[in-house]
Amino acid sequence: MDLNEFKSIALPQLEDTLLEELEIGVPTKGSLFEAMTYSVKAGGKRIRPLLLLATIQSLGGNIKSGLLAASALEYIHTYSLIHDDLPAMDDDALRRGQPTNHIIYGEALAILAGDGLLTLGFELLAKSPLTEKQKVRLILALSKAAGANGMVVGQVSDMEGESQKLTLTDLQNIHKKKTGELLKFAAYAGAVIVDADQETETQLVKFASHLGLAFQIRDDILDVIGTTAELGKETGMDAVHQKSTYPGLLTLAGAKKELAEELAKAQTSLANVDNKSVADTQLLEDFITLLEI
Amino acid sequence: MDLNEFKSIALPQLEDTLLEELEIGVPTKGSLFEAMTYSVKAGGKRIRPLLLLATIQSLGGNIKSGLLAASALEYIHTYSLIHDDLPAMDDDALRRGQPTNHIIYGEALAILAGDGLLTLGFELLAKSPLTEKQKVRLILALSKAAGANGMVVGQVSDMEGESQKLTLTDLQNIHKKKTGELLKFAAYAGAVIVDADQETETQLVKFASHLGLAFQIRDDILDVIGTTAELGKETGMDAVHQKSTYPGLLTLAGAKKELAEELAKAQTSLANVDNKSVADTQLLEDFITLLEI
Repeated sequence: MDLNEFKSIALPQLEDTLLEELEIGVPTKGSLFEAMTYSVKAGGKRIRPLLLLATIQSLGGNIKSGLLAASALEYIHTYSLIHDDLPAMDDDALRRGQPTNHIIYGEALAILAGDGLLTLGFELLAKSPLTEKQKVRLILALSKAAGANGMVVGQVSDMEGESQKLTLTDLQNIHKKKTGELLKFAAYAGAVIVDADQETETQLVKFASHLGLAFQIRDDILDVIGTTAELGKETGMDAVHQKSTYPGLLTLAGAKKELAEELAKAQTSLANVDNKSVADTQLLEDFITLLEI
Repeated sequence: MDLNEFKSIALPQLEDTLLEELEIGVPTKGSLFEAMTYSVKAGGKRIRPLLLLATIQSLGGNIKSGLLAASALEYIHTYSLIHDDLPAMDDDALRRGQPTNHIIYGEALAILAGDGLLTLGFELLAKSPLTEKQKVRLILALSKAAGANGMVVGQVSDMEGESQKLTLTDLQNIHKKKTGELLKFAAYAGAVIVDADQETETQLVKFASHLGLAFQIRDDILDVIGTTAELGKETGMDAVHQKSTYPGLLTLAGAKKELAEELAKAQTSLANVDNKSVADTQLLEDFITLLEI
């Protein structure tokens, strides 16, 4: 199955689950429910939950068993965007062409909507149709990936790094924490849900880790060479904000080479997965193709 | 065992665990670690974790099995205070006589320290020395108690209620969500950790629920009759802020009667617990005495 075919099957189920679980988890249909729903609906490409579900599919599992875990992951990604956009943080008024949460609902409700989504993420994992052991493994992994040794400390380093000239290692470390950990969780969760063997799990997590770095390098490159019309967002902003980026540190050609290398490493990790474990390799390979420039 | 004796045994272990788990959970000892540690150390009476541990003790269990769950609960309470104090919310510069988190570390780091503590709470539950089934029950219950149908929606209602004249039912509903749910979780978690029977669990949760309402009524009364010296905080502020309170809605005498009634109901719930289950009733009864005026 290719990624487009998979999306046409998985995305509608994911979108339904994302909204259904908000209905259940936030029974008072007031401003908090509205603020939480607004940002979940404003969601982008759903890369993280798609990778989780695609991992299940590739390992021969049933994606229905992963819909709550995938939604939990997307809620937690969404909460991080709401909080990152706040005036005290990146102070962004627009995201994907739409007003950010605090612009519509005010700062207080935006903070609380984020808190609500983060907490609901753990509720979804705890009530997933999985064994108790699987649930605990997922909750432990997601709390680490999203928390003060993962995404949260990544955001702190990113903020603190804005005023400094970063080395390539600094930049990679920030991205590993800020975006890499949740992508690794996506692959890990897929492997846990189908009870994959340890080696398969390890290789898939490596695959996701390289994918995460590639994703960020590509983002930096597109900010230099892309157009606003192509990307649906203003380009050239990294240079305006004097942000440390891969093209800035490596030159544009160097950044393209680095991107190709990360994607090659992702391919190698995927090839290292035992053929007996993977029912369908095309789907995960398509995530690599997606990131080529 | 009475509460003072229990405190002298349980509190040092709890304080050690609270700091040890921050050391483990936040390995980068930078500004995020500092901000999280600051508010955990600034903690008050540790009522919630003490109730959790006292429930275990009363049911004949070993409090060591509950130290991580108790710390998780206190982290989540602490995160809620950090976020509630933010300029966009209650805009408090002082808490218990000390500068609030954002006054010292800035708003961005205060938001992220709160996010980190909330997430670390779930990590602690997931790695508690309990069975997988117990862990999942605790995580499900705490996510519900703390989330968008519990504490978070309570804070939203509290904020939205500030500009309105509330009825007694409104006020009770806000307190049930904002403070009651975490206290109920404390008793529930104690019961789950010692594998208490269903009826014991139900009665102890009722006990904690009445305790929570009594706690809030008492707080409102003390704001009227207490002195700043006695309470270590400015009194009379509810009247200044025209807040809806129990004395305001019921008169001072009516509020005192309501407090006595809630404490009597707490006592009844405790008496309903099967004697065979409770190894020591004094300890939990002391929580009632503590709230008498």
